[in-house]
Amino acid sequence: MKQAVVLFLSVLLLSSCCTKSILEVGKTYIFPKGEKVTNKNFTGNVWLQMLAQDEQMSIGNVTFEPGARTKWHLHPGGQIILVTEGIGYYQEKGQLKKVLHKGDVIKCPPNVEHWHGASPSSHLVHLAISNNGKGAVMWLKPVTDTEYHKGD
Amino acid sequence: MKQAVVLFLSVLLLSSCCTKSILEVGKTYIFPKGEKVTNKNFTGNVWLQMLAQDEQMSIGNVTFEPGARTKWHLHPGGQIILVTEGIGYYQEKGQLKKVLHKGDVIKCPPNVEHWHGASPSSHLVHLAISNNGKGAVMWLKPVTDTEYHKGD
Repeated sequence: MKQAVVLFLSVLLLSSCCTKSILEVGKTYIFPKGEKVTNKNFTGNVWLQMLAQDEQMSIGNVTFEPGARTKWHLHPGGQIILVTEGIGYYQEKGQLKKVLHKGDVIKCPPNVEHWHGASPSSHLVHLAISNNGKGAVMWLKPVTDTEYHKGD
Repeated sequence: MKQAVVLFLSVLLLSSCCTKSILEVGKTYIFPKGEKVTNKNFTGNVWLQMLAQDEQMSIGNVTFEPGARTKWHLHPGGQIILVTEGIGYYQEKGQLKKVLHKGDVIKCPPNVEHWHGASPSSHLVHLAISNNGKGAVMWLKPVTDTEYHKGD
């Protein structure tokens, strides 16, 4: 009986430890999620936290809900995307859509029209590092559902 | 007896799951660790993976073993440090040492002498984002053990 109690308590302890780890997998956001974006440059729900910003460079932490994405847009100074969480898409005009995973680094060249966002079934979190010295982002048309799903 | 066996197997299963989670805490590196740094600008073992680099900006993923740190140095264009893993220190000349945790953002101003690295008992992983347009990093003296431990 004593052994059974010890075993039961062990199971309880290990179960609690294990459950915590499993639950934490889904919310290991490193940087703050920030505020929900309210402008019209995105489809779906997107959050932005600026981490650093001056006239030369900006670093934002961007979180996309499943299905959410940017409009087509371009950066006169280019942009680097560092994926820290989730699964998403990145596509340059005239190219096939790329699937993004945690750890991926995308170098978006200056003045190349593109979009990025979450996959339909997963959120996406990425850092967006922009060289602002050559001008601000130019927003273009929304990414249609047909464009978004093409190649799935 | 049957119950005891079931409990034993449960403990074994949960223990295996839990052990895996604990071990994985130490290796949830998002970006590649890269190559061991062999130059003399660091104390202890440090790894570097450049993620992006051009004449304007560089983004490196830096991993410090416990106790490892940079020399004192400065950046003519400043540097942003984004902590993604572990516990470390950051200190500007004449200021108290700050303790760094996952999610911390450090804005190191241009031409301010400073150092950063891991704490004595934890590794540190951070992204280092530098504006190279105003010149390269200038390396100075090593951080002595007395300087490193001051304020512990």
